[in-house]
Amino acid sequence: MSINTQNMQRFTRVKIEEFIQRCFVSSGLPSNDAATVAHFMAESDIMGKDSHGIFRLPGYISRLKAGGFNKNPNIKITQERTATALVDGDNGMGHLVVNYCAELAIKKAKKTGVSWVGVNHSNHAGAAGAYAMLPLEHNMIGIYVAVGSANHLPPWGGTEPLLSTNPIAVAIPGMKEKPILLDMATTVTSYGKVKVHAQRGIPMPEGWMIDNEGKSMTDASLSDNGFLLPIGGAKGYGLALIFGILAGTLNGAAFGKDVIDMNADKSSSTNTGQFIIALDISAFMDVIEFKKKIDQVVSTMHNSATMKGVDKVRLPGDGSHAAITDRVLNGIPLPLPLLEGLNKIADELNVQALD
Amino acid sequence: MSINTQNMQRFTRVKIEEFIQRCFVSSGLPSNDAATVAHFMAESDIMGKDSHGIFRLPGYISRLKAGGFNKNPNIKITQERTATALVDGDNGMGHLVVNYCAELAIKKAKKTGVSWVGVNHSNHAGAAGAYAMLPLEHNMIGIYVAVGSANHLPPWGGTEPLLSTNPIAVAIPGMKEKPILLDMATTVTSYGKVKVHAQRGIPMPEGWMIDNEGKSMTDASLSDNGFLLPIGGAKGYGLALIFGILAGTLNGAAFGKDVIDMNADKSSSTNTGQFIIALDISAFMDVIEFKKKIDQVVSTMHNSATMKGVDKVRLPGDGSHAAITDRVLNGIPLPLPLLEGLNKIADELNVQALD
Repeated sequence: MSINTQNMQRFTRVKIEEFIQRCFVSSGLPSNDAATVAHFMAESDIMGKDSHGIFRLPGYISRLKAGGFNKNPNIKITQERTATALVDGDNGMGHLVVNYCAELAIKKAKKTGVSWVGVNHSNHAGAAGAYAMLPLEHNMIGIYVAVGSANHLPPWGGTEPLLSTNPIAVAIPGMKEKPILLDMATTVTSYGKVKVHAQRGIPMPEGWMIDNEGKSMTDASLSDNGFLLPIGGAKGYGLALIFGILAGTLNGAAFGKDVIDMNADKSSSTNTGQFIIALDISAFMDVIEFKKKIDQVVSTMHNSATMKGVDKVRLPGDGSHAAITDRVLNGIPLPLPLLEGLNKIADELNVQALD
Repeated sequence: MSINTQNMQRFTRVKIEEFIQRCFVSSGLPSNDAATVAHFMAESDIMGKDSHGIFRLPGYISRLKAGGFNKNPNIKITQERTATALVDGDNGMGHLVVNYCAELAIKKAKKTGVSWVGVNHSNHAGAAGAYAMLPLEHNMIGIYVAVGSANHLPPWGGTEPLLSTNPIAVAIPGMKEKPILLDMATTVTSYGKVKVHAQRGIPMPEGWMIDNEGKSMTDASLSDNGFLLPIGGAKGYGLALIFGILAGTLNGAAFGKDVIDMNADKSSSTNTGQFIIALDISAFMDVIEFKKKIDQVVSTMHNSATMKGVDKVRLPGDGSHAAITDRVLNGIPLPLPLLEGLNKIADELNVQALD
């Protein structure tokens, strides 16, 4: 969705982070934890993943108020092998929990070449790409998969929304080129984008949703009675199912019917599952050689011939890199209604407004 | 594609395997290796992956004749960490090489919980699902990804076929239920299916291919000037790209422009790349408990409500399990033209015909 920067006010990343942090601290989160969550939320915003950044603050705050998050979680390893760990997030905010898992995965992969860390009793953690990126500064590739936080996807041919958008993010570093960063749901679109269309009263493109007879649905206001479509039909359903089992079932986390819609239910523990893989490049190839090869891949794709009407072939992550360039320079744009909502919360929490 | 079993002759798996084995032995493959390749080819057939089984024998035999495979490969580990290995397939037949990698991955995962084995100088290995299934008897989950053997997929918005269908297979065991087995290309369809439509002179469904202006192409006879479509547009392109980098570039194997079309070039080493992950269930959860949970997932999906016109919701792998049930009982059906071609080869190789 293109961003209309009219009716927007821009803020530096620092201002955004400090604002989020003080709201969380005032809501009872320890200062360090508040800073970590603020970091990853601002990271989502800076990467252009607007629906996963400060936009989520009101929902998180009301969940904190309702007791839906553990403010002082004891995040810990409950099972461990040389290259694996199962982590109990103790219902802490997902950003804290997944960051813990990523750090653990990186530490393990340094010794073993690859590691796989799964987690239960975690929560929504924002933009998947932010976690897949963490291994990169250790010359590793990052892979992150999450069970989505609400079910809007039926199995292919079905009418029961038993699955979520279960996203995957993979980050691969280049040398001079920016990282390749795939960050995608297994559905054609997200439910968040559907809701934006409903709010604005504009029709959805064909192929986003179907009704319970399998017919195309373009009226977003009817979305409660419709279903998201998986990418590639049965294939996307297969990916959503497999990712859900690997990130959910295998970790003893919620999957399928057990998934709790975090927006509809503010107080129950969601038992969200995720996993992260750290893959040490040097276990396979000289790191510099690999990164140069990635530069070649990026440049080959960027410089390849395009279809009529397409200015340039893109790499996964190009959109985020463009957003980062713009937002580091010009600040993170917030729509005025969102800004008003945030400052209403600040007022209630008796903390300094965002201005 | 539904199979028309008229004009088909059925053979037991044993007969198919023995036939393949004697053709390979007569072509210079050591007897043990010939048996291993024959096993995995017959496995493809028994699973209903007809385009990856005995159908490939003529191509493999002509490649052996042309010196395109190393008949006595020294398959070996060239780099190793506790949980990873890089294997050099020494241009052996892919079935041998990937089987070696799978066994190594299983051995490693028993110690470490998870392992990732990548390979270069491998070759086309047939049905991906056959390898993802190997870890299951060790109470592990299997994940297998390959760089496809010919490029028919451009980057999204582009017109240069820089990518292949780069498939992924994931196998997850149940207790009483049959395994969930996802085995999918990152394209809407395979080029093999396009070729079958061209041979039969029947139009392709919309959404399989586009021409170089991005317009839908349904005339399969024009496919040389068209491109496969990735699942979910940019998302499927992203998956094909990432899988290609992880299975190809990271292993020092061919990717992008370097991929050799094994059907067009019979003598050059393809330097095919693949990787396999073995994930030990017991590193995360009691194996019995996990398998019972998978049974529940399978049964929930199977018993969930369907759209009008859909008899039953399926799980990934249901098609293969149905094929196995039928073919174990009734034999593997071979179209008569294929059978004639196979027996012509048998005649040339001076081995006993398939009858």
